[in-house]
Amino acid sequence: MSLPHISPSIRVRRTPFTRRVEEAGVKAYSVYNRMLIPGYFHSIEEDYAHLKRAVQVWDVSCERQVEIKGPDALALVQMTTPRDLSRMTDDQCYYIPMVDDEGQILNDPIVIRLAEERYWLSLADSDMLYYCKGLAMGRDLNVQIFEPDVSPLAVQGPKSDELIERVFGADIVETRFFRHKTVNFQGQDMVIARSGWSHQGGFEIYLDGSQHGEALWDTLFEAGKDLDVRAGCPNLIERIEAGLLSYGNDMSINDTPFESGLGKYCNLDSATECLGHAALMQKQNPGRQIRPLAVAGPAVPSISWSWPLTDTAGNTAGHVTSITWSPDFEINVAIAMVRKDHWAAGTTLNVQAPDGPRAAEVRDSFWI
Amino acid sequence: MSLPHISPSIRVRRTPFTRRVEEAGVKAYSVYNRMLIPGYFHSIEEDYAHLKRAVQVWDVSCERQVEIKGPDALALVQMTTPRDLSRMTDDQCYYIPMVDDEGQILNDPIVIRLAEERYWLSLADSDMLYYCKGLAMGRDLNVQIFEPDVSPLAVQGPKSDELIERVFGADIVETRFFRHKTVNFQGQDMVIARSGWSHQGGFEIYLDGSQHGEALWDTLFEAGKDLDVRAGCPNLIERIEAGLLSYGNDMSINDTPFESGLGKYCNLDSATECLGHAALMQKQNPGRQIRPLAVAGPAVPSISWSWPLTDTAGNTAGHVTSITWSPDFEINVAIAMVRKDHWAAGTTLNVQAPDGPRAAEVRDSFWI
Repeated sequence: MSLPHISPSIRVRRTPFTRRVEEAGVKAYSVYNRMLIPGYFHSIEEDYAHLKRAVQVWDVSCERQVEIKGPDALALVQMTTPRDLSRMTDDQCYYIPMVDDEGQILNDPIVIRLAEERYWLSLADSDMLYYCKGLAMGRDLNVQIFEPDVSPLAVQGPKSDELIERVFGADIVETRFFRHKTVNFQGQDMVIARSGWSHQGGFEIYLDGSQHGEALWDTLFEAGKDLDVRAGCPNLIERIEAGLLSYGNDMSINDTPFESGLGKYCNLDSATECLGHAALMQKQNPGRQIRPLAVAGPAVPSISWSWPLTDTAGNTAGHVTSITWSPDFEINVAIAMVRKDHWAAGTTLNVQAPDGPRAAEVRDSFWI
Repeated sequence: MSLPHISPSIRVRRTPFTRRVEEAGVKAYSVYNRMLIPGYFHSIEEDYAHLKRAVQVWDVSCERQVEIKGPDALALVQMTTPRDLSRMTDDQCYYIPMVDDEGQILNDPIVIRLAEERYWLSLADSDMLYYCKGLAMGRDLNVQIFEPDVSPLAVQGPKSDELIERVFGADIVETRFFRHKTVNFQGQDMVIARSGWSHQGGFEIYLDGSQHGEALWDTLFEAGKDLDVRAGCPNLIERIEAGLLSYGNDMSINDTPFESGLGKYCNLDSATECLGHAALMQKQNPGRQIRPLAVAGPAVPSISWSWPLTDTAGNTAGHVTSITWSPDFEINVAIAMVRKDHWAAGTTLNVQAPDGPRAAEVRDSFWI
């Protein structure tokens, strides 16, 4: 049986790059922040191998930006996150867990400081525009909150530096990790950061103005021909190997930053204005936490609901949140939420996969 | 070329009915509130013809519920909508535009009053959970806001009453339009309302507890065999004919209720606590408005971005937001946002469809 296709509609938005993505032969899509995100181009395995050896251009427009600007902008963002933003400089990007008043995770965006009174939240898959608007309205904050016409295009892979240098020059390649600079593309200034949702290195270009999308795409492909540049997208295998968590898969409003292994982004000593501060003070020692998991047997089927984990006696031990076969490590690599009694590295557990039970082992680190 | 399929993931949630939907041969999906919604089963045309003559069961779990309860529940909901909720009774459902402080539409759910201090918002496609949480937190309101384990299953079509009577009895069939009652299904109380996103009549059963989903589905199919009950879903043709607006397609945060033809749900004389009240007072005479549009020529291709409308001199006149071929009316039926100078019934316009320009005529009513 063929897999159901995705219905065309305006509601699930196309991006400034969708025509190019289609021309590149996209074979699957998902929907992220009500916008199309490519699923794979050749196969997930082929895309993975290519990502690790060359350079890819990713349409991640679905990482929608929420712009917050005005005198209360910093105060508003700080209310939503336990990460201390007070020493952030105008060229920095921070990965921040955003939480509600119970310390539960609402999103885990990258916040980009553009100026003291101007920030972008580069979102994971939830409507922080609505949350921030509600909060600002409730508190009568002096801010403007809106979605600018900005769509990230990622350049990822070991040859990213070479490609970016060719297009934007050596100065841009010197950008440090999670710092941003400004490039001018055909007359339009755009933010570019050394960041991206892979462990292969690269940049994210914040396309400023949809009308420049296809020209930017074409310029990158023209300049990277001999680097074997290809269309790509966040790769399931590579991101599990690297332990990159996915909001909606590995964490949600049901989890805290401590449960999700994001405790290092919680500055509870100083970020006291975070509305979840009091709750998080009580939740610092979680009874379960995200762990890497190696799962035995042949390649697992696709996961579309949490698979239960049990200990060898059959007791509940947690659940698998992401899993796939890794061609390079020749094992099923997984991310799991594991209860404290079972989370020590080396613990043997059982996964209830749809095609039957499998042995699994908790690891002390991801595959990096 | 085959259409891209939809990538499986946990992030795009399955519903309590997805296994049954798959067994019924779903051929396409979309994503709505980060959950699967079926796109069609046989073909959009066949599903349409069947919906108009028989009865269908629709998995509309993606109409996620936001439960708001507590002493400030009514006050919170009233802040978000210009519709006056003060005379709502405990068995009523209201269709409400929800707006921000600028009077722009955030969602158009059905609000279900369960008790004086307990409401469900049965959502269109945007995260009102986040908006309401932000607002409640900002105002320090005494409410709880969460997503209950409730998933609507719609029964739609001319034989809906017959099917519902067989399963739930004659008393339930007497439920009036946009009123709700409670049924007990296998020991579990569930809300049932005479409502649904078609013009063919029917009910929405608010499945309370995912574990009952397949039993409820099976019970309806068993009871409706001789009524030719089938799996269905909101049908593009039927809903355009009926003028049912779709959030994200026909309206968004860029539109006001007056622009979207929802002025009758704005009680500006009494609903003064709506945070968008002052803005809406200024926006009562919009310069553009939703109109039915008949578009000439053979069946149009699928729409996945707004198609521009021009007048016969080539001036901008608006844009098409939804369109499809109607087998029954033998014309392309469309919903469009049309500028005031051009919105009079009978006005001739041109649609810039992807396959070329077409003549169109503004109508005074939808096809009902």
